[in-house]
Amino acid sequence: MAGEDVAASRVATAQLTSFIAAAYRAVGIAAPDAERAAELMAASDLSGADGHGVFRLPQYIRRIRAGGLNTAPDIRVIRQARAAAVVDGDNGLGSLVVARAVEEAIALARDNGVGWVGVRRGNHAGAAAVYAAMPLAYDMIGLYFAVGNANHLPPWGGIDMLLSTNPIAIAVPALEEPPLVLDMATTVAAYGKVKVAAQQGKRMPQGWMIDREGHPLVDPDRADDGFLLPIGGYKGAALALMFGLLAGTLNGAANGADVVDFNKDDTTPTNTGQAICVIDVKAFGEPVAFKRQVDLVIRQLHGSALLPGFDRIRLPGEDRHRRIVERRASGIPIPPALRRALDGLAAELAIAPLFG
Amino acid sequence: MAGEDVAASRVATAQLTSFIAAAYRAVGIAAPDAERAAELMAASDLSGADGHGVFRLPQYIRRIRAGGLNTAPDIRVIRQARAAAVVDGDNGLGSLVVARAVEEAIALARDNGVGWVGVRRGNHAGAAAVYAAMPLAYDMIGLYFAVGNANHLPPWGGIDMLLSTNPIAIAVPALEEPPLVLDMATTVAAYGKVKVAAQQGKRMPQGWMIDREGHPLVDPDRADDGFLLPIGGYKGAALALMFGLLAGTLNGAANGADVVDFNKDDTTPTNTGQAICVIDVKAFGEPVAFKRQVDLVIRQLHGSALLPGFDRIRLPGEDRHRRIVERRASGIPIPPALRRALDGLAAELAIAPLFG
Repeated sequence: MAGEDVAASRVATAQLTSFIAAAYRAVGIAAPDAERAAELMAASDLSGADGHGVFRLPQYIRRIRAGGLNTAPDIRVIRQARAAAVVDGDNGLGSLVVARAVEEAIALARDNGVGWVGVRRGNHAGAAAVYAAMPLAYDMIGLYFAVGNANHLPPWGGIDMLLSTNPIAIAVPALEEPPLVLDMATTVAAYGKVKVAAQQGKRMPQGWMIDREGHPLVDPDRADDGFLLPIGGYKGAALALMFGLLAGTLNGAANGADVVDFNKDDTTPTNTGQAICVIDVKAFGEPVAFKRQVDLVIRQLHGSALLPGFDRIRLPGEDRHRRIVERRASGIPIPPALRRALDGLAAELAIAPLFG
Repeated sequence: MAGEDVAASRVATAQLTSFIAAAYRAVGIAAPDAERAAELMAASDLSGADGHGVFRLPQYIRRIRAGGLNTAPDIRVIRQARAAAVVDGDNGLGSLVVARAVEEAIALARDNGVGWVGVRRGNHAGAAAVYAAMPLAYDMIGLYFAVGNANHLPPWGGIDMLLSTNPIAIAVPALEEPPLVLDMATTVAAYGKVKVAAQQGKRMPQGWMIDREGHPLVDPDRADDGFLLPIGGYKGAALALMFGLLAGTLNGAANGADVVDFNKDDTTPTNTGQAICVIDVKAFGEPVAFKRQVDLVIRQLHGSALLPGFDRIRLPGEDRHRRIVERRASGIPIPPALRRALDGLAAELAIAPLFG
């Protein structure tokens, strides 16, 4: 983590965390919350979910300054059953609210074998995998569902964008192999990929989006003329709907027409919902034996003969694991455009810039 | 349900159930188990999951007669935690084992807000939706995962078929609208659809299967030269893997290379795994208010303007609901080829034919 190991465009996790925490403190968030939320945001960057980490900080700060997010929330756990709970986030930072839900779900799973905790009145929380992976350290499995913060998906056969790209994340511990960590939108491409294509002036592959006539849409500058395609056609649209019901409607959170587009609206509370289910492996069997069996499945899959055009079998979570190892050693890359945005933010908030 | 309401090729549910139960009794299954398993099989037919109902009976009976399935299993619920359990099916009929798991999960959810029950040493159990939908009657949500009974899917980028089409089913209650019930394989097409195309001499659409070179495979008679494609490419393959870990590996059931192809092998115990998670809505809020909100989301989606080529928005479970209503009134259609197969089975078992 020493400065000399970090290339000019790279920053150590601790340094990034300090910067994010300073920004949060500058807009009125108390130091302990600022620190914790900064760690959770940097966890997205560390694991390679670049679109969900510090990239989002200017937008978060803009919302806070516009009064759209509560900087001193009373995050409450409402328990009406032994192994289930609802967390009311009081419109606080999404990361703090979801992390609280995961902690509660881990505690419930420890006591009951499984715990399911829903969130209401939260906000965008960053990469789903960050939360699904938290139970791994306790030999537990995490399943995470979220309602996305803008509707980019119509029902199958429709053109009104009433659904979001509602993601699922599932994390399963292994023994000697890295854990398996799936984190996916229910659309072929996440909307962030469309934005990246637009920034880079590239065309999109067919299959990402269609226009309102049903024709392929490949020009990302025309993204507003169409919508994302779900994986597997009607199947992905149905998954998005069901995950939205589990993460949103069940908890009294937004889903459907009441989802607030947080890119365009900085003031309306988003009432974002998420859900986390934690399973304690030892309620099902001996954890080491289970993890050894997961290793075995991983190795079977890696041993498959390859399809032409592929050089190896990639399993969910492998790239994430590789990036964590690499970025812990070499720092988190901050592209020039992001660096400029963060420098601007630092000036605006009168805090020290990320690169001092 | 009177006979005169049923066309020649249609059979009332009660009549179909009696026939299935008689077949089970004829191979040594005790009357109460035979009756229950028959009801569960007929539930697949009633709801339109024709490939998972009585269509499978000859194969089940063949396996039983070959000694590959235990006709008098000691189905045991192993509880090591308050809200979780494992059901050891003792290689009994899959339907009886999974139904037992669902009953247990409903009881656990009633006591704890959520219940998660895994199955090991079970068998093919029929349509996933039958089990996911059982909690609906109690204002509960069901999530069901299963390991398929033959590997037709390689890991993404590979050609060795180490994964099955591992399905997910999710059922959510509504108030005035039919419940939402999703039941889907993680592949673009279920393998049964390939078999149907082969029977009918039709070509398959591109996107269902590829061959070992990665080229589209559209001739269903060449199905053995290739494999199914997962939904969303690597995403669907990852879902299949994760669902296999939850439904199989976690419970000590088969997943990966140890999955037995039950089409080709009638004697090796399949050690089939499934998992059911039941959520009690009232642990999260007032059930009627929740179901009213689900209705609202359903109506929003139905109200979407249509994409050219579509005449309505179809939501998951609508066709299922329509078929249940229609088949309760008019009976379950039995195509000629199936009727011949069942007549042959009746003769073989010396039981009364389905159409007396």
